[in-house]
Amino acid sequence: MARKAGIIGGGVIGGGWAARFLLNGWDVAVFDPDPEAPRKVGEVIANAKRALPALSDGPMPPEGKLTFAATITEAVEGADYIQESVSERLDLKHRVFAQIQQVAPDTPIGSSTSGFKPSELQENAANPATIFVAHPFNPVYLLPLAEIVPSAKSDPALIEGAKETLREIGMFPLHIRKEIDAHIADRFLEAVWREALWLVKDGIATTEEIDEAIRMGFGLRWGQMGLFETYRIAGGEAGMKHFMAQFGPCLTWPWTKLMDVPEFNDELVDLIAGQSDAQSGHHSIRELERIRDQNLIGFLRVLKERNWGAGKVLLDHDARRRQAMPDPSPDHAQPMEMARMHVLPGWIDYNGHMTESRYLFAASETSDAFLRYIGADIAYVGTGFSYYTAETHIMHLGEAKLGDALTGTVQVIHADEKRLHIFLRILKNGEAVATLEQILLHVDMKAGKTCAAPAEILDRLLPIADAHKALPRPEAAGRFVGQKK
Amino acid sequence: MARKAGIIGGGVIGGGWAARFLLNGWDVAVFDPDPEAPRKVGEVIANAKRALPALSDGPMPPEGKLTFAATITEAVEGADYIQESVSERLDLKHRVFAQIQQVAPDTPIGSSTSGFKPSELQENAANPATIFVAHPFNPVYLLPLAEIVPSAKSDPALIEGAKETLREIGMFPLHIRKEIDAHIADRFLEAVWREALWLVKDGIATTEEIDEAIRMGFGLRWGQMGLFETYRIAGGEAGMKHFMAQFGPCLTWPWTKLMDVPEFNDELVDLIAGQSDAQSGHHSIRELERIRDQNLIGFLRVLKERNWGAGKVLLDHDARRRQAMPDPSPDHAQPMEMARMHVLPGWIDYNGHMTESRYLFAASETSDAFLRYIGADIAYVGTGFSYYTAETHIMHLGEAKLGDALTGTVQVIHADEKRLHIFLRILKNGEAVATLEQILLHVDMKAGKTCAAPAEILDRLLPIADAHKALPRPEAAGRFVGQKK
Repeated sequence: MARKAGIIGGGVIGGGWAARFLLNGWDVAVFDPDPEAPRKVGEVIANAKRALPALSDGPMPPEGKLTFAATITEAVEGADYIQESVSERLDLKHRVFAQIQQVAPDTPIGSSTSGFKPSELQENAANPATIFVAHPFNPVYLLPLAEIVPSAKSDPALIEGAKETLREIGMFPLHIRKEIDAHIADRFLEAVWREALWLVKDGIATTEEIDEAIRMGFGLRWGQMGLFETYRIAGGEAGMKHFMAQFGPCLTWPWTKLMDVPEFNDELVDLIAGQSDAQSGHHSIRELERIRDQNLIGFLRVLKERNWGAGKVLLDHDARRRQAMPDPSPDHAQPMEMARMHVLPGWIDYNGHMTESRYLFAASETSDAFLRYIGADIAYVGTGFSYYTAETHIMHLGEAKLGDALTGTVQVIHADEKRLHIFLRILKNGEAVATLEQILLHVDMKAGKTCAAPAEILDRLLPIADAHKALPRPEAAGRFVGQKK
Repeated sequence: MARKAGIIGGGVIGGGWAARFLLNGWDVAVFDPDPEAPRKVGEVIANAKRALPALSDGPMPPEGKLTFAATITEAVEGADYIQESVSERLDLKHRVFAQIQQVAPDTPIGSSTSGFKPSELQENAANPATIFVAHPFNPVYLLPLAEIVPSAKSDPALIEGAKETLREIGMFPLHIRKEIDAHIADRFLEAVWREALWLVKDGIATTEEIDEAIRMGFGLRWGQMGLFETYRIAGGEAGMKHFMAQFGPCLTWPWTKLMDVPEFNDELVDLIAGQSDAQSGHHSIRELERIRDQNLIGFLRVLKERNWGAGKVLLDHDARRRQAMPDPSPDHAQPMEMARMHVLPGWIDYNGHMTESRYLFAASETSDAFLRYIGADIAYVGTGFSYYTAETHIMHLGEAKLGDALTGTVQVIHADEKRLHIFLRILKNGEAVATLEQILLHVDMKAGKTCAAPAEILDRLLPIADAHKALPRPEAAGRFVGQKK
């Protein structure tokens, strides 16, 4: 049975949490007194549906059920996890926690607060042990970070359970051991924000110039390594101590204005809002959201390919999900379903269709899975042998578009010691959008020539080839380019 | 004739400048009294050669000539641009400028200084007008940002010329109108650095936890949008003023410790260096550099695909380079060379070979260029007509590896009003690594069926088809999968 998340507060952050739980198969009940909340949450979820599945290399689990609750009680009753994302007012948060704990005194309650310490959140609570900080970053459905901050009154086992819940929905819970105002990440954001306000106020730079100074330089670095690892490299062979010795003296130089705080007044707000309009006003907020999300998907997939940083979190999440799903045991008596894919943003051309080369990519995903299935997996390739594709014939029969779910099937036409002749179908809703006929050769990679596959592979492959002899030969097999139908 | 850059100081930054100029076709003379400088600069250039070409979609220009000069005079004589990257000591920089201006009083001198103001650099100079800040970010050969800071004494025309030079080598010169200590970007870095030192010193977080807090969250955001554009989105439909109203009050809250500065002593250095070893010590600095570079290439290519931020700089640079090169005027009397590519990091599989689907990708690059050449370009597709691939036959004949230069040629086998039958060769050093035979159909996309191509396309296409009738028919044409050779 699907578990239930109670989401209190349906703004951009609450909506992001709702989307993450929902798309990971949890039922979600949202409470927000704003009559516009269903629309706003709906828009965040629509964004998330365009984005989150693009990070996954396996099929998404069946989506959970979304409801909007009339009361906090209704939202949290029977919930396995509760997330609070109401406005940053401590008295309001206290009232919300009190209502929650009347019906759900033992359920973990994460707070999205940017600034309050968990001990402040817990004040006067019926059960302080279940309340902790779980601070996410916008867009919540894409960025993995959640700062988890317990206090001395927190229940350690409950905190571990909450971290496990967040990992299940693909997040990276960063356990912060000592509570301070604004936790860790927002201290940096606040320092940069204050410095930026000074620069604009003093007329040194506009909002646009500041943004360029960030995203053309160190911003790119920080998406994949943080501050210290980056500086470790800058220290070169001499390392971190050398770097610190070089820049230590700057600490006493006037390199920041943060010994003081800019006065926050209408003039400053107008100055910044006006510059921001000039910089970004030609895009609507919705457009900017989509641009941001597609950029972030791109970055995250780059890191995933390299099993690094946030990409490692995605790979771990895929592996965790695969483990929770039944093993594929394809039916040998028909073309074997070996791969399931979604058409990702990087797969489409300017027409909005899947690009030509991605059909061959989908076929490779399918044939690779088949090769793994008969024992020619990465470990086998590591021994110096592999199947190489010698020849392929592709028929384009239909069109796949962004987000389409595709499956790939394999029919063995002929197999012997050295040769593997297969016919692949890339299907959308059970109809082939492309078929591919291929000859693969078993190769001794060191010698650079074909050789017989070993018994352990042939013992798996040949019975499939035998079973497939009973299948009708595909019409397109043996066809040459331009042949009349 | 190649232009000459004089590079004074051969550390990580000076080496990065040398690499950028060199790979963009400039001759480079480096001066650094350190006898190890040629080795150190050589290592940076080796890194750059593995990385910078992967950002370009056209052929790189012929590499310039690298020399190590025995004196500053030798390095800067006849130089068109001079970049100073010596240690951050003002007296040393003044001595360097004095020596430079004895032989090159009118040449632009950019300084890589992180902190000094241009007016400080210009003090006592023979010609203050040519000295300015050109502050780059490590790795200089990948990150586009260079902060250009002139003073009141600077020559505006010289500054514009220097910015143009930096654009030519693929950088993004950010012109900073008012000089302050540490310019713009390093003010943020310094604020974050000071806050981070506090967090480590106070035992709130380790260097690793801080790095995760950055790269799992806001670091990913900042690689593509800066501070203000990100917050504009966070403000939602209510926009920037709403965001500021929400977080304005925090300015007076204890969200940063930057009203004070941590004491810089051995204890702090040891604490941080020790934590950094525990976090990253299992990778050598060289490994970390390569990991960082591959991640950055990935991010930059994502942004390039989307024509956004730093990716727009790359596209503009490609266009600028294309303009500087002669137009492709392929010879109709033989298979026409339509595309040149390098095998990029994302194109290779776990064997280190180009993945199967990338051969079809290389072919698409080639056939797309051919279609553009006959007039079926993006603008034409915008009118609702296009060529769709119906069928492809691929022969794999060789292997391409990371960094290999490939060319793609087109031979027209047959063309009529609706059909285009072509034979593509993907060549490495003139030898085909793959051949592809394709049928493309001219399609009315709205009606979803084939139709005759218009005269303006046929007028370009049919003469080529006629000329190609004289070419020998490729052996692989008309071949079916598994046919005996």
